[in-house]
Amino acid sequence: MNDTLERLALVLEARKTADPDSSYVAKLYARGLDTILKKIGEEATETVMAGKDGVPEQIVYEVADLWFHTLVLLAHQGLGPDAVLAELERRFGLSGLEEKASRAR
Amino acid sequence: MNDTLERLALVLEARKTADPDSSYVAKLYARGLDTILKKIGEEATETVMAGKDGVPEQIVYEVADLWFHTLVLLAHQGLGPDAVLAELERRFGLSGLEEKASRAR
Amino acid sequence: MNDTLERLALVLEARKTADPDSSYVAKLYARGLDTILKKIGEEATETVMAGKDGVPEQIVYEVADLWFHTLVLLAHQGLGPDAVLAELERRFGLSGLEEKASRAR
Amino acid sequence: MNDTLERLALVLEARKTADPDSSYVAKLYARGLDTILKKIGEEATETVMAGKDGVPEQIVYEVADLWFHTLVLLAHQGLGPDAVLAELERRFGLSGLEEKASRAR
Repeated sequence: MNDTLERLALVLEARKTADPDSSYVAKLYARGLDTILKKIGEEATETVMAGKDGVPEQIVYEVADLWFHTLVLLAHQGLGPDAVLAELERRFGLSGLEEKASRAR
Repeated sequence: MNDTLERLALVLEARKTADPDSSYVAKLYARGLDTILKKIGEEATETVMAGKDGVPEQIVYEVADLWFHTLVLLAHQGLGPDAVLAELERRFGLSGLEEKASRAR
Repeated sequence: MNDTLERLALVLEARKTADPDSSYVAKLYARGLDTILKKIGEEATETVMAGKDGVPEQIVYEVADLWFHTLVLLAHQGLGPDAVLAELERRFGLSGLEEKASRAR
Repeated sequence: MNDTLERLALVLEARKTADPDSSYVAKLYARGLDTILKKIGEEATETVMAGKDGVPEQIVYEVADLWFHTLVLLAHQGLGPDAVLAELERRFGLSGLEEKASRAR
Protein backbone atom coordinates (compact mmCIF):
# COMPACT_ATOMS: atom_id res chain seq x y z
CA MET A 1 0.00 0.00 0.00
CA ASN A 2 2.92 2.30 0.71
CA ASP A 3 3.63 3.15 -2.87
CA THR A 4 0.03 3.56 -3.99
CA LEU A 5 0.56 7.22 -4.82
CA GLU A 6 3.65 6.54 -6.92
CA ARG A 7 1.97 3.73 -8.85
CA LEU A 8 -1.06 5.93 -9.38
CA ALA A 9 1.25 8.68 -10.69
CA LEU A 10 2.69 6.22 -13.21
CA VAL A 11 -0.80 5.34 -14.41
CA LEU A 12 -1.68 9.03 -14.70
CA GLU A 13 1.50 9.60 -16.73
CA ALA A 14 0.60 6.73 -19.07
CA ARG A 15 -2.86 8.19 -19.62
CA LYS A 16 -1.31 11.22 -21.31
CA THR A 17 -1.24 9.30 -24.58
CA ALA A 18 -4.62 7.58 -24.12
CA ASP A 19 -7.72 8.26 -26.16
CA PRO A 20 -9.94 10.87 -24.44
CA ASP A 21 -12.98 8.86 -25.44
CA SER A 22 -11.83 5.75 -23.62
CA SER A 23 -10.30 7.20 -20.44
CA TYR A 24 -11.70 9.58 -17.81
CA VAL A 25 -8.21 10.93 -17.06
CA ALA A 26 -7.34 11.38 -20.73
CA LYS A 27 -10.59 13.32 -21.11
CA LEU A 28 -9.61 15.60 -18.22
CA TYR A 29 -6.20 16.24 -19.83
CA ALA A 30 -7.86 16.95 -23.18
CA ARG A 31 -10.27 19.46 -21.65
CA GLY A 32 -7.34 21.16 -19.95
CA LEU A 33 -6.29 22.89 -16.77
CA ASP A 34 -9.55 24.73 -16.03
CA THR A 35 -11.57 21.51 -16.10
CA ILE A 36 -9.12 19.85 -13.69
CA LEU A 37 -9.23 22.84 -11.33
CA LYS A 38 -13.05 22.88 -11.38
CA LYS A 39 -13.02 19.21 -10.37
CA ILE A 40 -10.76 20.05 -7.40
CA GLY A 41 -13.21 22.74 -6.32
CA GLU A 42 -16.12 20.29 -6.67
CA GLU A 43 -14.43 17.47 -4.77
CA ALA A 44 -13.37 19.84 -1.98
CA THR A 45 -16.99 20.94 -1.57
CA GLU A 46 -18.09 17.31 -1.48
CA THR A 47 -15.42 16.55 1.14
CA VAL A 48 -16.71 19.40 3.31
CA MET A 49 -20.28 18.11 2.91
CA ALA A 50 -19.18 14.56 3.77
CA GLY A 51 -17.45 15.96 6.86
CA LYS A 52 -20.71 17.62 7.93
CA ASP A 53 -22.58 14.34 7.36
CA GLY A 54 -20.01 12.48 9.46
CA VAL A 55 -20.30 9.17 7.59
CA PRO A 56 -16.80 7.56 7.60
CA GLU A 57 -17.15 5.75 4.25
CA GLN A 58 -18.37 8.94 2.59
CA ILE A 59 -15.47 10.98 4.00
CA VAL A 60 -12.92 8.42 2.77
CA TYR A 61 -14.59 8.28 -0.65
CA GLU A 62 -14.60 12.07 -1.10
CA VAL A 63 -11.04 12.54 0.19
CA ALA A 64 -9.96 9.86 -2.31
CA ASP A 65 -11.72 11.80 -5.07
CA LEU A 66 -10.04 15.02 -3.93
CA TRP A 67 -6.54 13.48 -3.74
CA PHE A 68 -7.11 11.81 -7.10
CA HIS A 69 -7.89 15.06 -8.86
CA THR A 70 -4.94 16.86 -7.21
CA LEU A 71 -2.76 14.02 -8.56
CA VAL A 72 -4.21 14.69 -12.01
CA LEU A 73 -3.34 18.39 -11.58
CA LEU A 74 0.21 17.49 -10.56
CA ALA A 75 0.62 15.13 -13.55
CA HIS A 76 -0.84 17.73 -15.93
CA GLN A 77 1.78 20.22 -14.67
CA GLY A 78 4.65 17.73 -14.96
CA LEU A 79 4.76 17.26 -11.18
CA GLY A 80 4.19 14.24 -8.94
CA PRO A 81 3.18 13.17 -5.43
CA ASP A 82 6.86 12.83 -4.43
CA ALA A 83 7.21 16.62 -4.46
CA VAL A 84 4.15 17.01 -2.20
CA LEU A 85 5.36 14.27 0.16
CA ALA A 86 8.80 15.95 0.27
CA GLU A 87 7.12 19.23 1.20
CA LEU A 88 5.16 17.50 4.00
CA GLU A 89 8.37 15.72 5.08
CA ARG A 90 10.24 19.02 5.14
CA ARG A 91 7.59 20.60 7.33
CA PHE A 92 7.50 17.99 10.03
CA GLY A 93 10.98 16.55 9.59
CA LEU A 94 13.10 19.67 9.81
CA SER A 95 11.18 22.46 11.38
CA GLY A 96 8.40 20.30 12.80
CA LEU A 97 4.78 19.90 11.84
CA GLU A 98 3.96 23.08 13.67
CA GLU A 99 5.98 25.22 11.30
CA LYS A 100 2.66 26.29 9.84
CA ALA A 101 1.48 27.69 13.13
CA SER A 102 4.34 30.14 13.24
CA ARG A 103 3.70 31.56 9.80
CA ALA A 104 2.00 34.93 9.62
CA ARG A 105 -1.59 34.07 8.78
CA MET B 1 9.55 8.89 1.60
CA ASN B 2 7.07 6.10 0.95
CA ASP B 3 5.57 6.07 4.40
CA THR B 4 5.38 9.83 4.86
CA LEU B 5 1.61 9.78 5.10
CA GLU B 6 1.60 7.05 7.75
CA ARG B 7 4.22 8.80 9.87
CA LEU B 8 2.33 12.05 9.51
CA ALA B 9 -0.83 10.25 10.66
CA LEU B 10 1.02 9.08 13.79
CA VAL B 11 2.08 12.64 14.55
CA LEU B 12 -1.48 13.87 14.04
CA GLU B 13 -2.72 11.16 16.42
CA ALA B 14 -0.18 12.21 19.05
CA ARG B 15 -1.30 15.83 18.77
CA LYS B 16 -4.72 14.86 20.13
CA THR B 17 -3.35 15.20 23.65
CA ALA B 18 -1.21 18.27 22.97
CA ASP B 19 -1.85 21.75 24.34
CA PRO B 20 -3.88 23.83 21.84
CA ASP B 21 -1.72 26.84 22.70
CA SER B 22 1.48 25.12 21.64
CA SER B 23 0.39 23.18 18.54
CA TYR B 24 -1.38 24.29 15.36
CA VAL B 25 -2.97 20.85 14.94
CA ALA B 26 -4.10 20.68 18.57
CA LYS B 27 -5.70 24.09 18.09
CA LEU B 28 -7.58 22.82 15.01
CA TYR B 29 -8.85 19.82 17.02
CA ALA B 30 -9.89 22.09 19.89
CA ARG B 31 -11.83 24.39 17.58
CA GLY B 32 -13.57 21.37 16.09
CA LEU B 33 -14.88 19.94 12.86
CA ASP B 34 -16.20 23.16 11.30
CA THR B 35 -12.82 24.87 11.61
CA ILE B 36 -11.09 21.91 9.96
CA LEU B 37 -13.64 21.86 7.12
CA LYS B 38 -13.24 25.61 6.55
CA LYS B 39 -9.50 25.10 6.22
CA ILE B 40 -10.10 22.42 3.55
CA GLY B 41 -12.27 24.88 1.64
CA GLU B 42 -9.60 27.58 1.94
CA GLU B 43 -6.73 25.34 0.86
CA ALA B 44 -8.73 24.00 -2.10
CA THR B 45 -9.33 27.58 -3.27
CA GLU B 46 -5.63 28.35 -2.89
CA THR B 47 -4.78 25.20 -4.87
CA VAL B 48 -7.08 26.33 -7.68
CA MET B 49 -5.47 29.78 -7.63
CA ALA B 50 -1.98 28.25 -7.67
CA GLY B 51 -3.07 26.13 -10.65
CA LYS B 52 -4.14 29.29 -12.50
CA ASP B 53 -0.80 30.95 -11.67
CA GLY B 54 1.05 27.89 -12.97
CA VAL B 55 4.03 28.22 -10.62
CA PRO B 56 5.22 24.65 -9.78
CA GLU B 57 6.51 25.42 -6.26
CA GLN B 58 3.25 27.19 -5.40
CA ILE B 59 1.15 24.26 -6.68
CA VAL B 60 3.19 21.76 -4.63
CA TYR B 61 2.95 23.98 -1.55
CA GLU B 62 -0.82 24.40 -1.78
CA VAL B 63 -1.50 20.72 -2.55
CA ALA B 64 0.61 19.87 0.52
CA ASP B 65 -1.52 22.26 2.59
CA LEU B 66 -4.69 20.67 1.19
CA TRP B 67 -3.55 17.08 1.81
CA PHE B 68 -2.37 18.08 5.29
CA HIS B 69 -5.76 19.43 6.31
CA THR B 70 -7.60 16.42 4.85
CA LEU B 71 -5.28 14.26 7.01
CA VAL B 72 -6.32 16.36 10.02
CA LEU B 73 -9.98 15.74 9.08
CA LEU B 74 -9.33 12.00 8.82
CA ALA B 75 -7.54 11.94 12.20
CA HIS B 76 -10.31 14.00 13.82
CA GLN B 77 -12.84 11.42 12.58
CA GLY B 78 -10.76 8.45 13.76
CA LEU B 79 -9.73 7.63 10.19
CA GLY B 80 -6.34 7.54 8.45
CA PRO B 81 -4.63 7.81 5.06
CA ASP B 82 -4.55 3.99 4.74
CA ALA B 83 -8.33 4.00 4.14
CA VAL B 84 -7.98 6.63 1.41
CA LEU B 85 -5.07 4.80 -0.22
CA ALA B 86 -7.09 1.55 -0.08
CA GLU B 87 -9.97 3.31 -1.82
CA LEU B 88 -7.62 4.60 -4.54
CA GLU B 89 -6.06 1.11 -4.78
CA ARG B 90 -9.51 -0.45 -5.10
CA ARG B 91 -10.42 1.89 -7.93
CA PHE B 92 -7.41 1.29 -10.12
CA GLY B 93 -6.49 -2.18 -8.91
CA LEU B 94 -9.75 -4.03 -9.39
CA SER B 95 -11.95 -2.19 -11.79
CA GLY B 96 -9.28 0.13 -13.14
CA LEU B 97 -8.68 3.82 -12.73
CA GLU B 98 -11.41 4.53 -15.19
CA GLU B 99 -14.13 3.17 -12.93
CA LYS B 100 -15.03 6.76 -12.21
CA ALA B 101 -15.78 7.46 -15.85
CA SER B 102 -18.49 4.83 -15.91
CA ARG B 103 -20.34 6.18 -12.88
CA ALA B 104 -23.48 8.16 -13.50
CA ARG B 105 -22.33 11.76 -13.16
CA MET C 1 -33.62 46.72 -12.68
CA ASN C 2 -33.92 47.44 -8.98
CA ASP C 3 -36.26 44.66 -8.18
CA THR C 4 -34.59 41.98 -10.28
CA LEU C 5 -33.81 39.85 -7.25
CA GLU C 6 -37.38 39.98 -5.96
CA ARG C 7 -38.85 39.08 -9.34
CA LEU C 8 -36.34 36.28 -9.67
CA ALA C 9 -37.36 35.03 -6.22
CA LEU C 10 -40.99 34.90 -7.39
CA VAL C 11 -40.02 32.84 -10.41
CA LEU C 12 -37.98 30.49 -8.20
CA GLU C 13 -41.01 30.12 -5.90
CA ALA C 14 -43.24 29.29 -8.88
CA ARG C 15 -40.78 26.62 -10.05
CA LYS C 16 -41.49 24.62 -6.89
CA THR C 17 -44.50 23.08 -8.61
CA ALA C 18 -42.90 22.71 -12.04
CA ASP C 19 -41.98 19.43 -13.72
CA PRO C 20 -38.30 18.53 -13.01
CA ASP C 21 -37.97 17.34 -16.59
CA SER C 22 -38.91 20.70 -18.04
CA SER C 23 -37.16 23.12 -15.67
CA TYR C 24 -33.53 23.36 -14.53
CA VAL C 25 -34.60 24.89 -11.19
CA ALA C 26 -37.29 22.27 -10.61
CA LYS C 27 -34.67 19.61 -11.26
CA LEU C 28 -32.39 21.18 -8.65
CA TYR C 29 -35.25 21.19 -6.11
CA ALA C 30 -36.06 17.56 -6.93
CA ARG C 31 -32.46 16.47 -6.43
CA GLY C 32 -32.43 18.28 -3.12
CA LEU C 33 -30.23 20.36 -0.83
CA ASP C 34 -26.91 18.59 -1.47
CA THR C 35 -27.16 19.14 -5.22
CA ILE C 36 -27.87 22.84 -4.69
CA LEU C 37 -24.93 23.19 -2.29
CA LYS C 38 -22.58 21.43 -4.72
CA LYS C 39 -23.60 23.92 -7.40
CA ILE C 40 -22.72 26.80 -5.04
CA GLY C 41 -19.28 25.25 -4.49
CA GLU C 42 -18.81 24.84 -8.24
CA GLU C 43 -19.89 28.36 -9.12
CA ALA C 44 -17.69 29.85 -6.40
CA THR C 45 -14.68 28.01 -7.85
CA GLU C 46 -15.58 29.30 -11.32
CA THR C 47 -15.90 32.84 -9.94
CA VAL C 48 -12.41 32.57 -8.41
CA MET C 49 -11.04 31.27 -11.73
CA ALA C 50 -12.77 34.08 -13.64
CA GLY C 51 -11.21 36.54 -11.18
CA LYS C 52 -7.76 35.12 -11.93
CA ASP C 53 -8.44 35.39 -15.68
CA GLY C 54 -9.52 39.01 -15.24
CA VAL C 55 -12.03 39.00 -18.10
CA PRO C 56 -14.91 41.33 -17.07
CA GLU C 57 -17.67 39.50 -18.99
CA GLN C 58 -16.57 36.19 -17.49
CA ILE C 59 -16.54 37.60 -13.94
CA VAL C 60 -20.03 39.02 -14.36
CA TYR C 61 -21.27 35.73 -15.83
CA GLU C 62 -19.85 33.61 -13.01
CA VAL C 63 -21.01 35.97 -10.24
CA ALA C 64 -24.50 35.83 -11.80
CA ASP C 65 -24.32 32.01 -11.71
CA LEU C 66 -23.19 32.12 -8.08
CA TRP C 67 -25.90 34.57 -6.99
CA PHE C 68 -28.49 32.54 -8.93
CA HIS C 69 -27.67 29.32 -7.10
CA THR C 70 -27.63 31.06 -3.70
CA LEU C 71 -31.11 32.34 -4.57
CA VAL C 72 -32.15 28.75 -5.31
CA LEU C 73 -30.75 27.73 -1.90
CA LEU C 74 -32.69 30.53 -0.20
CA ALA C 75 -35.91 29.55 -1.99
CA HIS C 76 -35.39 25.88 -1.17
CA GLN C 77 -35.07 26.82 2.52
CA GLY C 78 -38.15 29.07 2.46
CA LEU C 79 -36.02 32.21 2.51
CA GLY C 80 -35.57 35.07 0.06
CA PRO C 81 -33.15 37.78 -1.08
CA ASP C 82 -34.94 40.35 1.10
CA ALA C 83 -33.45 38.70 4.21
CA VAL C 84 -29.95 38.86 2.72
CA LEU C 85 -30.40 42.49 1.64
CA ALA C 86 -31.70 43.33 5.14
CA GLU C 87 -28.58 41.74 6.64
CA LEU C 88 -26.34 43.78 4.31
CA GLU C 89 -28.41 46.89 5.11
CA ARG C 90 -28.05 46.24 8.84
CA ARG C 91 -24.29 45.95 8.54
CA PHE C 92 -23.66 49.18 6.72
CA GLY C 93 -26.70 51.12 7.84
CA LEU C 94 -26.52 50.72 11.60
CA SER C 95 -23.07 49.65 12.62
CA GLY C 96 -21.38 50.49 9.37
CA LEU C 97 -19.94 48.36 6.62
CA GLU C 98 -16.82 47.95 8.70
CA GLU C 99 -18.63 45.98 11.39
CA LYS C 100 -17.05 42.91 9.91
CA ALA C 101 -13.56 44.21 10.51
CA SER C 102 -14.16 44.40 14.23
CA ARG C 103 -15.28 40.82 14.56
CA ALA C 104 -12.84 38.32 15.96
CA ARG C 105 -11.54 36.54 12.89
CA MET D 1 -34.51 47.99 0.34
CA ASN D 2 -34.61 47.74 -3.43
CA ASP D 3 -31.48 49.68 -4.07
CA THR D 4 -29.38 48.16 -1.30
CA LEU D 5 -26.90 46.68 -3.75
CA GLU D 6 -26.42 49.96 -5.60
CA ARG D 7 -25.91 51.92 -2.38
CA LEU D 8 -23.51 49.28 -1.16
CA ALA D 9 -21.61 49.57 -4.47
CA LEU D 10 -21.27 53.32 -3.89
CA VAL D 11 -19.83 52.71 -0.44
CA LEU D 12 -17.40 50.15 -1.85
CA GLU D 13 -16.34 52.69 -4.49
CA ALA D 14 -15.74 55.32 -1.82
CA ARG D 15 -13.59 52.90 0.18
CA LYS D 16 -11.04 52.87 -2.64
CA THR D 17 -9.47 55.99 -1.19
CA ALA D 18 -9.83 54.99 2.47
CA ASP D 19 -6.98 54.09 4.83
CA PRO D 20 -6.41 50.30 4.87
CA ASP D 21 -5.85 50.50 8.62
CA SER D 22 -9.27 51.96 9.28
CA SER D 23 -11.46 50.03 6.83
CA TYR D 24 -11.92 46.29 6.25
CA VAL D 25 -12.77 46.88 2.58
CA ALA D 26 -9.81 49.22 2.05
CA LYS D 27 -7.59 46.52 3.57
CA LEU D 28 -8.98 43.96 1.11
CA TYR D 29 -8.25 46.32 -1.81
CA ALA D 30 -4.73 46.95 -0.49
CA ARG D 31 -3.98 43.24 -0.21
CA GLY D 32 -5.23 42.77 -3.76
CA LEU D 33 -7.16 40.39 -5.98
CA ASP D 34 -5.88 37.10 -4.52
CA THR D 35 -7.00 38.04 -1.01
CA ILE D 36 -10.48 38.96 -2.29
CA LEU D 37 -10.75 35.69 -4.23
CA LYS D 38 -9.68 33.66 -1.17
CA LYS D 39 -12.44 35.35 0.83
CA ILE D 40 -14.99 34.31 -1.83
CA GLY D 41 -13.77 30.72 -1.55
CA GLU D 42 -14.02 30.88 2.24
CA GLU D 43 -17.49 32.39 2.31
CA ALA D 44 -18.77 29.88 -0.25
CA THR D 45 -17.54 27.03 1.97
CA GLU D 46 -19.24 28.63 4.97
CA THR D 47 -22.47 28.99 2.95
CA VAL D 48 -22.35 25.28 2.07
CA MET D 49 -21.76 24.42 5.73
CA ALA D 50 -24.63 26.68 6.82
CA GLY D 51 -26.82 24.93 4.26
CA LYS D 52 -25.93 21.57 5.78
CA ASP D 53 -26.71 22.91 9.27
CA GLY D 54 -30.07 24.20 8.04
CA VAL D 55 -30.25 27.16 10.42
CA PRO D 56 -32.05 30.01 8.54
CA GLU D 57 -30.24 32.89 10.28
CA GLN D 58 -26.88 31.27 9.60
CA ILE D 59 -27.71 30.72 5.90
CA VAL D 60 -28.77 34.36 5.49
CA TYR D 61 -25.64 35.55 7.31
CA GLU D 62 -23.28 33.48 5.16
CA VAL D 63 -25.01 34.32 1.87
CA ALA D 64 -24.72 38.01 2.87
CA ASP D 65 -20.99 37.50 3.48
CA LEU D 66 -20.65 35.77 0.11
CA TRP D 67 -22.55 38.43 -1.82
CA PHE D 68 -20.60 41.13 0.01
CA HIS D 69 -17.23 39.75 -1.06
CA THR D 70 -18.40 39.23 -4.67
CA LEU D 71 -19.41 42.93 -4.62
CA VAL D 72 -15.89 43.77 -3.42
CA LEU D 73 -14.50 41.70 -6.33
CA LEU D 74 -16.76 43.54 -8.78
CA ALA D 75 -15.72 46.95 -7.38
CA HIS D 76 -12.03 45.98 -7.45
CA GLN D 77 -12.42 45.11 -11.15
CA GLY D 78 -14.29 48.31 -11.98
CA LEU D 79 -17.60 46.47 -12.24
CA GLY D 80 -20.85 46.71 -10.28
CA PRO D 81 -23.95 44.77 -9.26
CA ASP D 82 -25.93 46.34 -12.13
CA ALA D 83 -24.00 44.21 -14.63
CA VAL D 84 -24.78 41.03 -12.65
CA LEU D 85 -28.45 41.98 -12.31
CA ALA D 86 -28.58 42.71 -16.06
CA GLU D 87 -27.12 39.26 -16.74
CA LEU D 88 -29.76 37.64 -14.49
CA GLU D 89 -32.43 39.78 -16.15
CA ARG D 90 -31.22 38.74 -19.59
CA ARG D 91 -31.41 35.07 -18.66
CA PHE D 92 -34.94 35.03 -17.38
CA GLY D 93 -36.29 38.01 -19.29
CA LEU D 94 -35.41 37.08 -22.85
CA SER D 95 -34.77 33.41 -23.09
CA GLY D 96 -36.24 32.45 -19.76
CA LEU D 97 -34.70 31.34 -16.50
CA GLU D 98 -34.26 27.90 -17.95
CA GLU D 99 -31.75 29.06 -20.53
CA LYS D 100 -29.12 27.53 -18.32
CA ALA D 101 -30.64 24.07 -18.59
CA SER D 102 -30.21 24.05 -22.31
CA ARG D 103 -26.52 24.86 -22.23
CA ALA D 104 -24.10 22.04 -22.80
CA ARG D 105 -22.88 21.19 -19.30
